Amino acid sequence: MAKAAVLHRYGEPLSIEELDLAIPKRGEVKVKMKAAGLCHSDWHVVQGQLPLPLPIVLGHEGAGIVEEVGEGVTSVKQGDHVVLNWVPSCGTCSYCRTGRPDLCEEAARLMATGTLPDGTTRFSLHGKSVYQFLTAGAFSEYTIVPEQAAIPIRRDVPFEVAALIGCSVITGVGAAIHTAKVSPGSTVAVIGAGGVGFNIIQGAALAGAKQIIAIDVVDEKLAMTKTFGATHTVNAREDDAVSAVLDLTDGIGVDYAFEAIGRPETMADAYNMTRKAGTTVIVGIAAPHETVEINAFSLPSQSKTLTGSWLGQGNPPVDYPKLLDLYAAGKLKLEPLISAVYSLDQINDGFAALKSGQNIRGIIRFEE
Amino acid sequence: MAKAAVLHRYGEPLSIEELDLAIPKRGEVKVKMKAAGLCHSDWHVVQGQLPLPLPIVLGHEGAGIVEEVGEGVTSVKQGDHVVLNWVPSCGTCSYCRTGRPDLCEEAARLMATGTLPDGTTRFSLHGKSVYQFLTAGAFSEYTIVPEQAAIPIRRDVPFEVAALIGCSVITGVGAAIHTAKVSPGSTVAVIGAGGVGFNIIQGAALAGAKQIIAIDVVDEKLAMTKTFGATHTVNAREDDAVSAVLDLTDGIGVDYAFEAIGRPETMADAYNMTRKAGTTVIVGIAAPHETVEINAFSLPSQSKTLTGSWLGQGNPPVDYPKLLDLYAAGKLKLEPLISAVYSLDQINDGFAALKSGQNIRGIIRFEE
Repeated sequence: MAKAAVLHRYGEPLSIEELDLAIPKRGEVKVKMKAAGLCHSDWHVVQGQLPLPLPIVLGHEGAGIVEEVGEGVTSVKQGDHVVLNWVPSCGTCSYCRTGRPDLCEEAARLMATGTLPDGTTRFSLHGKSVYQFLTAGAFSEYTIVPEQAAIPIRRDVPFEVAALIGCSVITGVGAAIHTAKVSPGSTVAVIGAGGVGFNIIQGAALAGAKQIIAIDVVDEKLAMTKTFGATHTVNAREDDAVSAVLDLTDGIGVDYAFEAIGRPETMADAYNMTRKAGTTVIVGIAAPHETVEINAFSLPSQSKTLTGSWLGQGNPPVDYPKLLDLYAAGKLKLEPLISAVYSLDQINDGFAALKSGQNIRGIIRFEE
Repeated sequence: MAKAAVLHRYGEPLSIEELDLAIPKRGEVKVKMKAAGLCHSDWHVVQGQLPLPLPIVLGHEGAGIVEEVGEGVTSVKQGDHVVLNWVPSCGTCSYCRTGRPDLCEEAARLMATGTLPDGTTRFSLHGKSVYQFLTAGAFSEYTIVPEQAAIPIRRDVPFEVAALIGCSVITGVGAAIHTAKVSPGSTVAVIGAGGVGFNIIQGAALAGAKQIIAIDVVDEKLAMTKTFGATHTVNAREDDAVSAVLDLTDGIGVDYAFEAIGRPETMADAYNMTRKAGTTVIVGIAAPHETVEINAFSLPSQSKTLTGSWLGQGNPPVDYPKLLDLYAAGKLKLEPLISAVYSLDQINDGFAALKSGQNIRGIIRFEE
């Protein structure tokens, strides 16, 4: 049995239920969850913007302790601290073999099926399958994931902090250092001061950017960006964001602009505030049907690069430990990212706060 | 005096007139033109799609012989064969200093003013200035350009062929080898079988692409793409281009897709036929107000790179000689690019043929 937060119908609150949990099969790992973050991607599913099979256990940004391992598991053992990897890459598709496990074909397939690789799930309710978001199903006291989805980490880090590494930190820091390859002395703009935006900012600061302009519509969030390394802030309700960034860069635009909201208009803004030959990185997740409008003449004449970043173009087995080492060395600030802590029973309150824009990152702390 | 083709009003035929030509000032070079290509960019100006001061001498893809040099000119001397460089980069702006002379700020300024760097022109008619397109003004028996716009070349190449190097060849080949960095064994799609498209194809072939899919709506042009190295052709009037490319690549999409027409719809097609993490390069020039629509969710989740290429991201003083060496070595096919030869007096016939889609590349050959 495992107490979990289940989505039965789009738009409805999550329901806390005791699910049946099978035992880990070959190559699978049972994890006792300790902490899980409330991410906008989970919220997108609740709202029906990312259609998935229901009922489903959401949650994908999580950390816990290995409770039991299935046959053949070699990379973790009972008692190990782990962070879940919501892109459990197969290692054999063309993307995995060319250094892009973030784009693994098998992981993309599992994102759509809501299952483990064999097409089934380990959760059930009254004999019927309950699906697992991104294989993780992290909003549950216990979950069972493929071995490659349980990344062992150092033991001296609080679970709440470790959980964040699994999504918002790798996504934001990775967008800056892997996708954009922000270089020392460069200029950066980040649209969206939230869990991901803060991490883009601290990734850019870590990489030595000389100017980091944070853009949002909430002054309190903008004030927080200074903690992570922003040098300037723009409130886009008061000033036109593109004009403000041009003003701050002698009319040139920034070397790198990031969008971390998921709105087509702000994605276009990010492109328009990037200098010629600069790089625009889209990190925010839009609804599947939305489109961004880009000026066609500017594509050749300004030769900017417009790209996107998924999981921070990262490789969790390599990057989670590295990011936690940076945290331990005082080079990444993770505690300030956590704005509220909830019990699993309070999860709907947490999503309500997320929806209202109050929370940067709410965290579920599982009871002992 | 110099006989030249002058645009007095948008939408009207060019008028052949005897213009007054000043002497080259300090740092300028007078060139006796031998050949000049009829490019779509010239045609865009005739139609009023790229607003410029009038009257103007068009033409920017040209080759000739140095007739006279102004004070202080050191890189060329009388009698040298030269190809005009329509992006005469300043060498001192931030783009020039960071290896991107194609995006030189000063050259971009001159594109808009229709003048030489000092703000004046060397052509006049009845005492009034006549402007020079891209500093070149190549549709004239003689022209005067900045020293950096006259690139010395080997003498054993026909002028008609040399002229092409100056725009369609560096633009197309450069888009493949500099911007996209097409790699051996990769897959490529090129939308638009014209002067630039053929050169993208042969650039990709030179770089070792294993599959090169040419897309157009004219079967005769598609047939010609085989000459330049296309392995497959798709007539987009008969088949949906994106579906056809997916079919030819096991549903994956190509590593690199290029658009060489300048239409927003085909730019979006190029993006949509690119595989995850692949590169889409826009080479075609759209009208200034047009926009391309890109799926917003795909930007992070598929992490493609959408970029553009201007002057093939090239550096004429380095690239023109290199491209001509490749031609001399039999590695670039340039004669087949020339579809018709005209005298300067016949220039309006040449543009009519360009407009009708008959011509790949018409060339003006200047009389002795």
